[in-house]
Parts: sequence; structure tokens; C-alpha cells
Amino acid sequence: MKALVYGGAGNRSWIDVPDPSIKDPEDAIVRVDAVTICGTDLHILKGDVPEVDSGRILGHEAVGTVLDVGEQVHDISVGQRVLVSCISSCGRCRFCKEGRYGQCLGGGGWVLGHTIDGTQAERVRVPFADHSLHVLPDNVSSEDALMLADILPTSYEVGVLAGHVSPGDTVVVVGAGPIGLAALLTARLFSPSQVVMVDPAASRREQALASGADHAVASDAEAEALVQELTGGLGADVAIEAVGVPGSFELCTTLIRPGGHVANVGVHGAPATLHLETLWIKDVTITTGLVDTRTTPLLLRLLGEGKIDVSSLCTHRFGIDEMQDAYDVFARAGETGALKVALFNPDAVG
Amino acid sequence: MKALVYGGAGNRSWIDVPDPSIKDPEDAIVRVDAVTICGTDLHILKGDVPEVDSGRILGHEAVGTVLDVGEQVHDISVGQRVLVSCISSCGRCRFCKEGRYGQCLGGGGWVLGHTIDGTQAERVRVPFADHSLHVLPDNVSSEDALMLADILPTSYEVGVLAGHVSPGDTVVVVGAGPIGLAALLTARLFSPSQVVMVDPAASRREQALASGADHAVASDAEAEALVQELTGGLGADVAIEAVGVPGSFELCTTLIRPGGHVANVGVHGAPATLHLETLWIKDVTITTGLVDTRTTPLLLRLLGEGKIDVSSLCTHRFGIDEMQDAYDVFARAGETGALKVALFNPDAVG
Amino acid sequence: MKALVYGGAGNRSWIDVPDPSIKDPEDAIVRVDAVTICGTDLHILKGDVPEVDSGRILGHEAVGTVLDVGEQVHDISVGQRVLVSCISSCGRCRFCKEGRYGQCLGGGGWVLGHTIDGTQAERVRVPFADHSLHVLPDNVSSEDALMLADILPTSYEVGVLAGHVSPGDTVVVVGAGPIGLAALLTARLFSPSQVVMVDPAASRREQALASGADHAVASDAEAEALVQELTGGLGADVAIEAVGVPGSFELCTTLIRPGGHVANVGVHGAPATLHLETLWIKDVTITTGLVDTRTTPLLLRLLGEGKIDVSSLCTHRFGIDEMQDAYDVFARAGETGALKVALFNPDAVG
Amino acid sequence: MKALVYGGAGNRSWIDVPDPSIKDPEDAIVRVDAVTICGTDLHILKGDVPEVDSGRILGHEAVGTVLDVGEQVHDISVGQRVLVSCISSCGRCRFCKEGRYGQCLGGGGWVLGHTIDGTQAERVRVPFADHSLHVLPDNVSSEDALMLADILPTSYEVGVLAGHVSPGDTVVVVGAGPIGLAALLTARLFSPSQVVMVDPAASRREQALASGADHAVASDAEAEALVQELTGGLGADVAIEAVGVPGSFELCTTLIRPGGHVANVGVHGAPATLHLETLWIKDVTITTGLVDTRTTPLLLRLLGEGKIDVSSLCTHRFGIDEMQDAYDVFARAGETGALKVALFNPDAVG
Repeated sequence: MKALVYGGAGNRSWIDVPDPSIKDPEDAIVRVDAVTICGTDLHILKGDVPEVDSGRILGHEAVGTVLDVGEQVHDISVGQRVLVSCISSCGRCRFCKEGRYGQCLGGGGWVLGHTIDGTQAERVRVPFADHSLHVLPDNVSSEDALMLADILPTSYEVGVLAGHVSPGDTVVVVGAGPIGLAALLTARLFSPSQVVMVDPAASRREQALASGADHAVASDAEAEALVQELTGGLGADVAIEAVGVPGSFELCTTLIRPGGHVANVGVHGAPATLHLETLWIKDVTITTGLVDTRTTPLLLRLLGEGKIDVSSLCTHRFGIDEMQDAYDVFARAGETGALKVALFNPDAVG
Repeated sequence: MKALVYGGAGNRSWIDVPDPSIKDPEDAIVRVDAVTICGTDLHILKGDVPEVDSGRILGHEAVGTVLDVGEQVHDISVGQRVLVSCISSCGRCRFCKEGRYGQCLGGGGWVLGHTIDGTQAERVRVPFADHSLHVLPDNVSSEDALMLADILPTSYEVGVLAGHVSPGDTVVVVGAGPIGLAALLTARLFSPSQVVMVDPAASRREQALASGADHAVASDAEAEALVQELTGGLGADVAIEAVGVPGSFELCTTLIRPGGHVANVGVHGAPATLHLETLWIKDVTITTGLVDTRTTPLLLRLLGEGKIDVSSLCTHRFGIDEMQDAYDVFARAGETGALKVALFNPDAVG
Repeated sequence: MKALVYGGAGNRSWIDVPDPSIKDPEDAIVRVDAVTICGTDLHILKGDVPEVDSGRILGHEAVGTVLDVGEQVHDISVGQRVLVSCISSCGRCRFCKEGRYGQCLGGGGWVLGHTIDGTQAERVRVPFADHSLHVLPDNVSSEDALMLADILPTSYEVGVLAGHVSPGDTVVVVGAGPIGLAALLTARLFSPSQVVMVDPAASRREQALASGADHAVASDAEAEALVQELTGGLGADVAIEAVGVPGSFELCTTLIRPGGHVANVGVHGAPATLHLETLWIKDVTITTGLVDTRTTPLLLRLLGEGKIDVSSLCTHRFGIDEMQDAYDVFARAGETGALKVALFNPDAVG
Repeated sequence: MKALVYGGAGNRSWIDVPDPSIKDPEDAIVRVDAVTICGTDLHILKGDVPEVDSGRILGHEAVGTVLDVGEQVHDISVGQRVLVSCISSCGRCRFCKEGRYGQCLGGGGWVLGHTIDGTQAERVRVPFADHSLHVLPDNVSSEDALMLADILPTSYEVGVLAGHVSPGDTVVVVGAGPIGLAALLTARLFSPSQVVMVDPAASRREQALASGADHAVASDAEAEALVQELTGGLGADVAIEAVGVPGSFELCTTLIRPGGHVANVGVHGAPATLHLETLWIKDVTITTGLVDTRTTPLLLRLLGEGKIDVSSLCTHRFGIDEMQDAYDVFARAGETGALKVALFNPDAVG
């Protein structure tokens, strides 16, 4: 089969590799019908994620059709249309029992396209299939479902739920890329009074406003002035970091009100400065986290019911053979305006 | 009357000042029967708290007897023995209605010995008396009650409750001074499996072990090794920062397990480094805060019932006229072994 | 002035009574600009609420203009347009400090039109004015604000929040009168998947569907069948009782899923049967309560922002002098289709 | 092997039956080293639990040694000393993923000695072994561990945690049998101010006081008078029902304060009367539930650390062959003073 193979920093190729097969009786083999690319894949390609070995197939988000299952798989069967989630779960360790699948101690967590071969291929082996695949209802399209492989549960769990977004809140989301927009879409489930998006890119601010943001501003200074004005000088109830650089985290801690929540969603590669000399007295809660995907079944249901509309998140579509082109478009998001890109296997139906 | 007056950085004097009187109908005037000194007072004397003006009477912790009340005071009456709490509360603003008295927007919060004259005097004016004084039961001594003016509710609310200490937890407290020891005493209300104290001073480690700590270690490296060993490499469930310097905060973020809580209690004067490059993925919750004293009535009750024993916290006792000596002893805690010092007015009974 | 005076069971009159005046320095006197009638007033008139004495002015919901304030009132001033809430709060007792104003131990709670004279009059004395009146923003009409004097915070706090309505939930509301409809409107703040209303009156079912209910059924049997079907046999996540008779409470306990919440909002006059022989094993949570009105400021804000639309709740409008007619219409809701009725003082503006 | 076989209402025999064997690849076969009898077993023998078929081996609590495991068992191996828990869990259904194992939809929940053969035998087949067995640490004796097969997690989860026992609380436990005493022991992990036990049997009241209860009273009237006195007329913060008859539940609802929690632990066979005419206004939370055993690992750890002392719960010890004698003693608890009885297999070590 064909797959997108990491060849060390700066090097990716779409080449022939052996088909995957069942290695553990809890595995499933899934034909990839739709797949996407994550900002994290770009980090890997820069060489920023050293535990990814050369030769690894990348990708941790897909929709597909089950081709084969191991003999210890109970709830997944051949022929089902499934969501391949970015998180695998052994289902038996302490953290899996707490619903903290992202911290799985039994061989799961984020493994696809990271420590084992991933989804940017024609087929993928998924470990712990019972706990790592989600059967898709017919009324959810593959493209929409792709948005639930990573970004929607990530923004909802690590941003909205950890940040305790509540009716009437003033919520700031720093970063209006796919993760930030997904935070906007899922924050609205709790009826905040206003959501302020902060992003230097005009196209992303426009997209945010079109997706329901109440305000979109470009700079830290504008964000500070606007939040002061909107909240009578108190600060935001919730600030969600959706970029992954020190400055955007520090902006969140500046914008927050006494008693407020800063929820970090971004993937960081460098430390930030925590201004404890002003924050120690402010009753602030700061949370970090990897998605657990424990809300994926709920989000799938809300998607099917039309309570969440993700149609604005996918900006470019390709055939799966155009993987390299898709990477090029996604990597140059500043020019191309790409948010999420979707690649489809022409053999798949629906 | 006599009072301890701040005279700018490095300057304190015990001098005659005018007696306080009712300025607002919600005020009470309290004769100071017992008073103590806080580490924060030393910070002020170093000039680190610029909003304290020269001429200010210091002190925010006392036990006393009510001498006079304004005409809008309902629940406090002349002659009552009361705890003067470090936090005043207007009782009407948004934050007071939420029980977040430390963030009072109506003129309360931490004001005594800060923005108005404080308790290190023979008498003190207490604003918002109904919401800021606590009538003392007969079975609580003044010395014990003093420990509830600041350090016990601070450690309990900002450390133990914000950190969600739970039965079976491994809790680390960094700093074994008065605040750290109070965190130890109140953490035990929730039956943690083990409390590890970290402090470079041997005398404080001994004191911690005598007060019920399961382990006491001197250095960061020892703390890391011990917590790894005790938790099978996972890390502590809760880490409480009780010093107020960047290094001790950073140690807490190193010791914490995935899903754990870092509760900052210390008063900081400088920023810390937050290692988001390792913490982003760890599901960590970090909290900061000023005490609200909303648990002071509960702690007073537990003290009267013998559920909390604070007798080890007060190491030195003085007459109130020995204020300068008491400051000298407290400021040289490294040599004197001082934790809390208590000064008593010889006119008071009990 | 004129007032609606209770004259013992079955007896009400709109008669001249003396004007109220400040009796306590925390009081305010409010001119009633708009007022409504509650189902509880009908209970009182039946003689079901024995602590209401003959001669009492009824009513606990109004919008008005402040005419006078006592000398201990700080935050309310003459001329302000205010919401008179059904709950008064002393602000100083244990329960008020916990935000549990409905249980006030200091002379507040539900007192207006109950143990002191109420709002169905041209003027009303409101105790503890700082804690019991809410200044109205200009963009909220008096008619809309009336819906926040009792029914909206009651349904939101005692129904929606106590029942933990969450995104994706199946919520059943038994009773589609004003309280049930207010539960529907406020439940939607949390994006439930579906709200099922149960009411035998066709007009109320139609009203419920027009207000956004997903389903409306007439009988217990239909409710059981529908909830089974909608939830794959599991039962509802949340069931809100909004009638106040044993049968409707018992229906809620029948419809609930394992792990679900039954939130009782109705005012009951008789015991219900609790089927512990089936419920003991089902992990069910049942809550009761009187409104605290702690969410009234939030709901006022959401109303001003258009996040809640209460325009469907008020069905009939009168001049305040038509009080007896309004009672007649409201008491015959089955015929008149009345939900809430509003009476306006022609002297009021806006 | 020998086993205690249910032969229809009133009929039990200790007879030879075939040895169990692996029927499902997730099964384990466990040699029973220690076993106990539950009050529920007596209910079954009265014929009160119709889903138990004649011919069923009873018992759902044991400690044993693993003899065999199915090929899909990952974390349990032959030779391990294990706790056989009253709750089995498939680990894959919606409720198991929420930690609500008692409500398992995949074939688990309470099945042992109920819908499949149980532990009152020389050997037992345990389904879903990975999720239903707990490996025992060496420092926990089999007799102590037996107390964690059902009663301790039941009292802790369904009583103490569901009831939100907190430091300083006044807690009432109605019923001082094994479940009530276990509620007392585990409530103390949260440092309540006082625990009041209610039981008509003098021997049980003595046992309660010896186990740390602050008060023990015989009658409803005494309980009401004492709780009024202890709480200044407000009522108890938490009331735990540990009997399973209507009267004891109704007592709990009488004793509770506004804002308090009634946690029902008892197994009921008949409905109770819920006095909504007084409770509707009281902000009361009532919870029911079957144990999930999600806290069993924590309780095992606390037992090993000496934080919980269960030594007073087991009053009579037998050889496993004396099963019928043990039932006789346990069934006549009123005369024999029996709380829990333990039966040991002489082949077991330790």
C-alpha cells in the first residue's frame, strides 16, 4: 500500500510500504477512507518530536472501514465504518479506568503516527480496537467525522470543559486556527455571553466571526483593551490558549479575571513565564492536558443531531494519492488559508 | 496608644499614636489582647509592598475584645471576644456574594496593616465588622485562635481545598514554615496516605515530623527521588507551594503526577518558569489565590472540638510591649527556630 | 394606596390600605410599576398555606421604582428601576453566606406576600434592600423582568442546575405551565439533545413546542413510551418536576435512567410514594429546593443580551387596578390559556 | 467440590457440585480461601429476589487463589491471591467507561451468587477477570480483605461519597450492622465533627461506640432530639440509611438539615413515603445506588497502610465446611451478636 513516511527532519515521502496486519489479538485493521493532517504532523516533520523514528507512517486522524479484527475484539466488526481516534486506550490501566485515556499506562495514549504507524496510508493497524474506534452513525459524513478524530474533543475537553465555560461567561480564545475554531464551536454549547477570538491573521479572524465569534482582534494590546471594556475591567472568565507559544499563554494569564480559568490546549515546545508576582493573589486556575476522547461519543451524537456544525473547518479536499500536495497546502496555511484539509480514498463510498 | 508603625523600608517603631475611633457605621473598635507577626510583615519592612505607606500601623492577625461598634453593626457587640481576620468583607459585592472575600470589590479584602492601620497596636479599627470578625467560643484559647487569623484558613483554602487533597493521596508540601505546617495539619483532615515536607532547615523538618509528616527531606533532588519511589514513578497527587520563590514553585510542577494539582500558597515577588514543553500534555491543574477566610468558622469549630491541634505552631511568647523584640526573634527564624510568635496584652484575661 | 388583601380562605379584595413606610434601616419602599400573580398565590387563597394571616397583602414578584431607602441601604437609591425578587436575604447568616438565600435564617427567604405584606399593591416595603432588589438595565422591559422575579431563577436553579442538565442530555419536564416552560427555556442554555414536555393540556403542549420543546406528550404512558424509545430503553438523563402533585413526581422517578437526576421544582401539599424497592439500585439523585435567586443577576444579563427569550410566557396584560380580573383569568388557566399575567401601573414609564 | 446451593425459598444445602471451568476467554477460576455471608443472601433465601434460580450457588464476596485464567485475561495470573468483588465489570460498556460498574450493561454488575454461581463454594468462576478481581498486597490479611468485597466500598461509595461527608459535618447513620459500621469507619476519613449511630440493638450501639461513633441512640425519637440538640435545631449535614426499610429512610429525611444529603445504602423491598409537603422547600439531596467498587483499590491501599481498621467487623470464624453453621449464626444475629462471619478454607495459607 501507499503511505506517508517520515524520513527524518524535513523529509516526507508517499511510498509503497507493506500492508499492516493483526499483531495483537486486540487489533483491528482499517481501510482509510478519509484522513487529515494535524499541526502536530508539521512539528514532527521539523524534527521537534524526537521519539518519532525515521520510517514511521504519520497521521492520527481518520475515518475508515474495518477490514480485519483480532480474536479479542468484541464490539467492532468487519465492514463497519469507524472513526479512528487520535487516542488509543488499553481500557485496563488506572488512568483508562478514570477515563483519562490520553495518559494510558498500558500501551495506549497518543501512539498512532507517533510511536507506531499512523493513518496517512491506505490502511492502518489500530491497537485496542474496542477502546480506540468509534462506529459512525449513517447520518454523519466522513468529512465531518474527521473533525472529531482530534480537534473537536481536544478543544472541548482540554479547553471548554477544563476551563468550565458557563452560561453568561466572557470567553477569550487565543488562536483562530482549527483548534481555536473548534473551541469556539464547542464553547457555544454552554451559552457564553461572548467569545473573543485573538489571531493576527485577518482571514482567520473573518472565519472566526463567520463561525459565531462575537469579536475578533489581531493583537495582544487590542485583546487587553477589548476584554477590559467588555468586563468592566475585571477580565475574562475563561481564556483558552490554542496556539502553543509562550506569548499566547502569557496573554491568557494577563486577560483572566480573579477567579477565572486559563485552559491551555496548545502544544508547546518552550517554557513560558508565569507571572506569579501578580497571579499569586488572583485566585486563578490554570489547566493543561492531552485529549482523552472520552467525549467523542457525545460529540458524534451532537454532530448527528445538528447541534454542532463543523462544516466551516475543512477548507481543502484531495484524493488520498495527493498526500504530498495536501501537506504543501496545509503547511502554507498563511498563504492558502487552509484550516483542515481532507483526503479521500476514491474506493470509499459515502 | 502604642503601635508598631512602618516608617519606610527597613524602619519600624513602637510609638504612641492616636487611638482609633469609629469612622464608618459598619466599623468596630477592638482592644488587641493577642497579636502575631506574619512573614508578609517582613516583606513590607523590606519595602517589597509599595502600596503600604510610611506611617501605617502593621499587622493583620489578632484576638481582641470589642470596645465599640458603629450603628450599622448587627451581629457583633461590645465586650465580645473576637478573632480579627486578615480578610475584611463588604458582604455586598459580587465576589463577597460568591464567598470570594479575598477579592472583595467593595473596600474589603486584605486591608488591615496594608491599606489601613492594622492590629499590631493596643487597639484596632475593623471595617465591615459583621463580615470581618468572628466571635470566639470559650473553649478556644487566644493563642490557638491567633493561628486562625491567617495561616490556617490560608493553608486550608488555598492549599488543601484548592489542591483537592483526598483520602489516600500522596501530598508534597514545599516549605515547612508556619504556612507549610498549617497545610500539613489541615491536609490530614482528608486522610492522605502520606505527606512529604520539603525544607532545607533541619529544625523545620524535625518540627514537621513531630507534627505528623510522614517524610521530611532537605533538597529538591531528595524530594524528587522520594516522590518517585513512593508513587511508583508517577508523581505526587497534590503539591502545595508554601514558600513564595520561583524554585519552590518549579519544584512542585516537577513533582506532580499526570492529573495532579499544584496549589500555590506562597506570596511571590518574581516570576517563575512554567515548563509548558513538558507540562502541556500532563493534565495538570495549577491554582493560586488569596485566602477568603470562608472556612474560618469551620476551622474554629474543629479547633474547639480538638480535631485540629495547632499547639506546635507558636514557638515564642511576649508581652505586647515587647513588639520590637518579637520582630527581632521572628525575623531571625533561622537562628531562633521561630515559627509563629504571640504577643499578649497583660490587660486581657484568658 | 390600593392592595390585594387576603381575607382568609377563598377571600381576596382590592382595597385601600395605608401606605408602607421604612420600618428597618435596611428597608426600601418601592412603587410597583408591574406585578404578576403566582400559582402559589392561588394556593394561599385556597387556605393551603396556614402561615399567611388574614389581612396580608399578597404577591412576591414585581418591577418598580425606588421611592425611599433606609439609612443602612448602600447600593440602592431613590429613583432606580428595580426587580423585586421573591427572595429576600439578610446577607449575614450562615445560609446567605453560602448563597442559599432561600433558606435565610436572619429574617429573609420567602417573606413577601407570605409573612410580610407583598407586591400586589401600589407600593411595597422590601426588607434587606441591598440583598433583595436588583437594579434593572435599560434594555430589559418591565414585562420581561417580571419573569425573573420568581419563575426563571426557580426553574434554572432548582430544576436545570440542580438536575445538572448537560450537552446531549435527554431532559423531561413534567408540567408545561409557567415553571415548566421556564425550565425548558433555561435548560436550553446547556444544549440538551432533546427536551420532552409532559402536560395533559393541549394548549400548553402547543405552547411548549412553539417555545422549542422537541416533543410534547399528554399522558404518563405516552411519556414512558417516548422516553424509552428516545433513549434506547435507558431512561432520561434529567427529569424536572414542575407541577407539585405526587403523580408527577412519581412519573419523574419512573422515567429516569440509572445515574440520572430528578429535580423537583413543584410546590407540594401531600407526600409522594418513593419506590425504593426499584430505585435503591439505580444510582438516582433526587433534589428539592426553594429558589435562592443567586442566578438572578446572570439571568438578567442573559435576558438583556437576548440569550433567553421570555416573550412567550406572558399571555395577558392588565392595569394594576384590574387586579381582581387578572386573578380571575389566571385562576381559570385551563379555559383562558393563561400562563403569566402582567399588571401595569399607568404611572410607570417603560 | 462442595458449595452452598439455593433450593428455593427457605432451602439451602452444602452439597457436591461439579467444579467450575473457564466458559469465556475473559474468565478466571479462583480457589476460595475465605468467604463471607451477606444480608442479601438471607433476602435471597427468603425468596425475596426472584431472579435467583433454584440450584444457584450463593455468595458474592471472597478471597482466593487464581487456579486458571482464560486466554483473554491480561492482568491476572495463576497463583495470585485475589479479592473477588461483588461487582463484575465488562470494561467496555458506557457505564463501565464512566466507572459505574454496578450498572454494567455488558453482562457484569452484581452477577455472582445472583444470576451466575457465586463464591460460597470451594471454587468459583469469575467473569471479566481483569475488571472484577483485585490482586491483594501481602500486608492485607484475607479476613480484612473480605470486608472489602462488598461492605466497605458499598458504604464508602453509596454512603460517604454520595453523601458528601466533609470536615466538621454532623453525620447520622441509621443502622449499626455491618454496612452502618463500615459507613462509620469510612466517614471518618473526612473528619466529621460527630457521627451519630441509630440502632435498636444495644449490642450494636456498643459496637458502634467502640468503633468510634460519638453517639449511639436506640429510637427515632432519641435520634431526633439528639440531632436537634447537636445542631442547634438545624438538622444533620448527612444522613446515611443502612437498614433497608421504609421507616429508617423516612427517619433520615426527618433528621436532615436544609441543604443536607440523604444517602440511601440499604436494600429495600418496599416503597417509602417521601414527605414532599415538607421537603420540597428544604434543598435536600437524596441519592440511591449500587456499589461500583471503583474505590476498592484505594480502600485496599488504605487498609494496608492502617488508615482504616476493619478488625471489629468480623465476629465469628468458621471452616468452609461449616457453611451451614455459619449461616445459622449469621441469620440469628440478634441473639449471636454476629456482624460479619468469615469462613476459611484450611488448604489456604495466610
